[in-house]
Amino acid sequence: MSRLTYGKYLKLKELLACQVLESAKAGRPAHDELLFIVTHQTYELWFKQVLHELGAARRIMGAEVVNERDVGRALHALERVIKIQGVLVDQIDVLETMTPLDFLDFRNLLTPSSGFQSAQFRELENTLGLKRTQRLRYNEADYETSLDAADRRAVGAAAQAPSLFDVVEAWLARTPFVQFREFDFWREYRANVTRMLDEDRATITAQLPDAARGAQLEELDRTRATFESVFDPGKYEALRAAGERRLSYPAFLAALMIMLYRDEPILQSPYRLLTALVEIDENLALWRYRHALMVERMIGAKIGTGGSSGHEYLRRTIEAHRVFLDFFNLSTYLIPRSLLPRLPAELERALGFRWNA
Amino acid sequence: MSRLTYGKYLKLKELLACQVLESAKAGRPAHDELLFIVTHQTYELWFKQVLHELGAARRIMGAEVVNERDVGRALHALERVIKIQGVLVDQIDVLETMTPLDFLDFRNLLTPSSGFQSAQFRELENTLGLKRTQRLRYNEADYETSLDAADRRAVGAAAQAPSLFDVVEAWLARTPFVQFREFDFWREYRANVTRMLDEDRATITAQLPDAARGAQLEELDRTRATFESVFDPGKYEALRAAGERRLSYPAFLAALMIMLYRDEPILQSPYRLLTALVEIDENLALWRYRHALMVERMIGAKIGTGGSSGHEYLRRTIEAHRVFLDFFNLSTYLIPRSLLPRLPAELERALGFRWNA
Amino acid sequence: MSRLTYGKYLKLKELLACQVLESAKAGRPAHDELLFIVTHQTYELWFKQVLHELGAARRIMGAEVVNERDVGRALHALERVIKIQGVLVDQIDVLETMTPLDFLDFRNLLTPSSGFQSAQFRELENTLGLKRTQRLRYNEADYETSLDAADRRAVGAAAQAPSLFDVVEAWLARTPFVQFREFDFWREYRANVTRMLDEDRATITAQLPDAARGAQLEELDRTRATFESVFDPGKYEALRAAGERRLSYPAFLAALMIMLYRDEPILQSPYRLLTALVEIDENLALWRYRHALMVERMIGAKIGTGGSSGHEYLRRTIEAHRVFLDFFNLSTYLIPRSLLPRLPAELERALGFRWNA
Amino acid sequence: MSRLTYGKYLKLKELLACQVLESAKAGRPAHDELLFIVTHQTYELWFKQVLHELGAARRIMGAEVVNERDVGRALHALERVIKIQGVLVDQIDVLETMTPLDFLDFRNLLTPSSGFQSAQFRELENTLGLKRTQRLRYNEADYETSLDAADRRAVGAAAQAPSLFDVVEAWLARTPFVQFREFDFWREYRANVTRMLDEDRATITAQLPDAARGAQLEELDRTRATFESVFDPGKYEALRAAGERRLSYPAFLAALMIMLYRDEPILQSPYRLLTALVEIDENLALWRYRHALMVERMIGAKIGTGGSSGHEYLRRTIEAHRVFLDFFNLSTYLIPRSLLPRLPAELERALGFRWNA
Repeated sequence: MSRLTYGKYLKLKELLACQVLESAKAGRPAHDELLFIVTHQTYELWFKQVLHELGAARRIMGAEVVNERDVGRALHALERVIKIQGVLVDQIDVLETMTPLDFLDFRNLLTPSSGFQSAQFRELENTLGLKRTQRLRYNEADYETSLDAADRRAVGAAAQAPSLFDVVEAWLARTPFVQFREFDFWREYRANVTRMLDEDRATITAQLPDAARGAQLEELDRTRATFESVFDPGKYEALRAAGERRLSYPAFLAALMIMLYRDEPILQSPYRLLTALVEIDENLALWRYRHALMVERMIGAKIGTGGSSGHEYLRRTIEAHRVFLDFFNLSTYLIPRSLLPRLPAELERALGFRWNA
Repeated sequence: MSRLTYGKYLKLKELLACQVLESAKAGRPAHDELLFIVTHQTYELWFKQVLHELGAARRIMGAEVVNERDVGRALHALERVIKIQGVLVDQIDVLETMTPLDFLDFRNLLTPSSGFQSAQFRELENTLGLKRTQRLRYNEADYETSLDAADRRAVGAAAQAPSLFDVVEAWLARTPFVQFREFDFWREYRANVTRMLDEDRATITAQLPDAARGAQLEELDRTRATFESVFDPGKYEALRAAGERRLSYPAFLAALMIMLYRDEPILQSPYRLLTALVEIDENLALWRYRHALMVERMIGAKIGTGGSSGHEYLRRTIEAHRVFLDFFNLSTYLIPRSLLPRLPAELERALGFRWNA
Repeated sequence: MSRLTYGKYLKLKELLACQVLESAKAGRPAHDELLFIVTHQTYELWFKQVLHELGAARRIMGAEVVNERDVGRALHALERVIKIQGVLVDQIDVLETMTPLDFLDFRNLLTPSSGFQSAQFRELENTLGLKRTQRLRYNEADYETSLDAADRRAVGAAAQAPSLFDVVEAWLARTPFVQFREFDFWREYRANVTRMLDEDRATITAQLPDAARGAQLEELDRTRATFESVFDPGKYEALRAAGERRLSYPAFLAALMIMLYRDEPILQSPYRLLTALVEIDENLALWRYRHALMVERMIGAKIGTGGSSGHEYLRRTIEAHRVFLDFFNLSTYLIPRSLLPRLPAELERALGFRWNA
Repeated sequence: MSRLTYGKYLKLKELLACQVLESAKAGRPAHDELLFIVTHQTYELWFKQVLHELGAARRIMGAEVVNERDVGRALHALERVIKIQGVLVDQIDVLETMTPLDFLDFRNLLTPSSGFQSAQFRELENTLGLKRTQRLRYNEADYETSLDAADRRAVGAAAQAPSLFDVVEAWLARTPFVQFREFDFWREYRANVTRMLDEDRATITAQLPDAARGAQLEELDRTRATFESVFDPGKYEALRAAGERRLSYPAFLAALMIMLYRDEPILQSPYRLLTALVEIDENLALWRYRHALMVERMIGAKIGTGGSSGHEYLRRTIEAHRVFLDFFNLSTYLIPRSLLPRLPAELERALGFRWNA
């Protein structure tokens, strides 16, 4: 048997044969087309890796019993995704060295292929938990339209399986400590929220100029109404029905308690996990933002190679395609540590490690 | 006379005495307040440096005669600003290590001060060329309202002086080669544009699925109309009156020629200059984007320390406060090199260096 | 009482008065001197913040009892330091926009002040745990020579107090589970190490070309000898006496177990803590590396403003001034998970969380 | 004919089939092996792109006549390489998320393949201009030993062809303006250098403490001797014979004049070109540094998969494999602008643009 070499291990012969320039086929090779191909191919390689990690996190968090060690492993996978996203964003700097004029040298040869046909990217969105109804339509067509049959199956499978959002939501809903309600956590929390909002009202009244005061007080009333939804399942479900919340009520309460008591040893990993999900969501949005800007700068008001003003679509997905917005928005319900209800000693012990070897 | 030391040169005693915690004054020091202060102070130091560089660029490009060496110096100043902006964006990563709960520990003590009161930032926007009419109002008030008298004077002075946008626009309008029209550049360009758009129409008709075709053809018609404004000063001025263009017509034509013929030696520095201005604008937008996101994540739907939902305002400034959008949009009018009218030999020589020592 | 404004809170008037150009005093203002001052002042502001965080971590880890929640807080401080170091490194990109010629415009005016006089940086090194004997001498002088009296006191105090290295070492040495030796962890580990090294020898013999084999086998013998020091306190102490180890033997064993069993819930935070210390050390080395390179590029073989070829000194500190090298080197003693001794069930339970509310 | 799709264009089926895990073949799939493969494959894709750009720059600068427009194009290629290097360095952050323990899960399966077998990386070094004699030997073997026949030919061809260093050196040596010596540039420069060094001596004597003075004066003498080599071809050639200089004397003089008079319009692009080469060299060194550190942290004092303590070899290449050190070191010979000989008007005109259309 032949010895393993670097080149054979990495299949470099095959890998480095995958760059075929349309401009060369057409008889007028464009210097910058290789950059265009290499950038997109490295994106696809990284997407494969991201899918590998998100899949692992989904599997781990989707188990019937998720113990602490598992949360640590899922977290590790998500933190790697965050690092990869850093590279994905940086790569835009490289692609931006291609000027619009250079792109025009081969742009027309690529029609009608389009980045919107990246099956892995669709699969990635589905794995995170982007809902079909949430997707913006592009060129009046469903997103699968642009995929071939095999890709459609893979992307569809990811859409059918429970997403990362789904399994984290279910795991949160099962969290035991929220049930620890004999000490009536939420009543105390509610009283303190009321106190805080009353103070805010006093501050606005005392310190803001007249012109600004009215708008502020209106906004404060909206905040107060928002808090009501925490205490009243009915109001919460109404918001959810209206599409303004996605998390189930029990999952929402658990997530909020994790944010509030993140310093407790047993909650540190869960806290990091929720934060990592928000960061992944934000990084994806940042990548969309940078990407949209680059496309716009590259082709101006012209149409993309796949038809339609792609950058306009890209721009709107920045906000519309966010998955973990509910976690992002949890800070709305945070209150200063000084107002935080003190946990009963028994519960606090339960949230710590015990060393009694 | 005493010898200069590092500490005396940098006035470290004074500098390091400028961090005074409100939470300490209030008798309950919050660990994270120092981070809040240091981050904002480094921002202000960098703003001072950015103003220094933008001021230099404005002075250089505002001279009656701007020779090539000058363009190189202005460019150098702008490229430094771009590097500084990289640090400004990175600093957000640091501030984000402060969690919402940690911020709540001292947030209320800062009311009603607010980042919107940064006079240097306003001055920076004015120096670039942000127009008063373009500014979003915050809390129903003009932006000066939040500044004290001295700051208001400095910011106002920057608003009165010709901005970087103004001097670059005037310099472009004076560019001689656009007058080199005996060879009827624009007629030839127009013919080629028409050819290109006809090809695009053929591509759409042949390759796009029926569902997408209609929308694409409409968009193509809009593109065609957009191009008309290049050839027809009347149409251009109409767009300008409607606020859709800012550059004067002659400046616009000069900028477009620089983009199209950027490979000519004499146009390389001007091309880099326009590109640098676009990049500064984009980086500022990116910083606003990241900043808005961070504020939102930090305080949720609560009001900012200065009143009003600051992040909503910040978010809207991302697009509304862009200054060099006209340069950014120039790619709309680019055409493939193969369609680019060949410059007459005489003009081409004039755009090159001559070495005849 | 006057209302707090942004400018008053940040003491902007004082802060923005701290930039005084020597070149302006000398009557020929150099454009780039402001950049030089601002960059160094932002460095000093960040150093202050880093000292604040390192001080907190030192205090937390230096307590008699350090519970899990505390480790999380210390970790948070260290992770913030890591983010700040990212900015410190990025700032070099900004300073590098000053070309050597531009620096020469005011360089001589700064003599004999020098960055080596930064008291905060010395204090930072001392807080981390850089030993006096470890410091390279610069200009044949002790590092305090360049400091004024007040600075010398502050830096000296940091040198007297237990450093971050000291308190972490003591905390490790107190770790209880290493004592859990009835199951004779180290005997089993040793047997597996021997097995692993024997396999490595077989691999070398079978697979490497003759030319390379000899050197490899020698190196393998050295590795084997290195492992001996883990099992034999006498050999370990001999290495320590020779300056090749710094950690005490019990602390070393605890750190190794944390690395080996980092997946255990109770060890996740300690693992992250040790990793963060290594990363801080590496980032500092990276900053020194970039800094040395920049100085060299800036002034070439000329002497620095403080005398001596600073970049040569800087370059040597990259390796010489590392503090947490022992943790960095722990990977030498890692073995594949498949060879890892299985913990007894009782101990494993003790290392996990228990939820029995 | 079938329509081009995104997947077909990028050959995604082939590309995404190139990741074959040895650990899966061995029946115990290691989660992290995919990361190891993907990271190295993206490196190889980027190496291909870097070779494409360096090849273009080499071809452009190797032409018999290189006009200004060409320099601009070569510069553009090099600036793109710099951006790509940024991504290469960032990718190390991703690979570092693989911990030593995780690597041990599949490390032994990779023996004896090794990153030292990357043919493209060797080709890249040769294209830049790394000399065979300059290369450190690894495992006592020439670097081709580890390559297969086809790779050896490709790498050898790159070694035979004139490197980027060679063509830039030849282009510099042909630069006309250095011949413009009737105004006796070098005599005036020499006088001013002497003046500057005398001032430095005075500064040292007056300002440095006694202890430091001696060493400084010695160093100053060395600087003086260094300068002598600029004026005396014989001394220069002696340094070159000793391996301390690589550039030919005429090329060296031209490069120095470009550095000194970089503000002249005609020298701005050449100045940027030399600076870009230095930056590429530095970035490569930085990548080697980060890479060595990562390998060390990953495997400790163990041997690499290809045998030998790879990190030690990597570490030594950081300095030993630099190619454009002579340009880096040019700052040694810079003098303040105030001491710069004024160019005769005729020459200054020749270095500017003339606009007389």
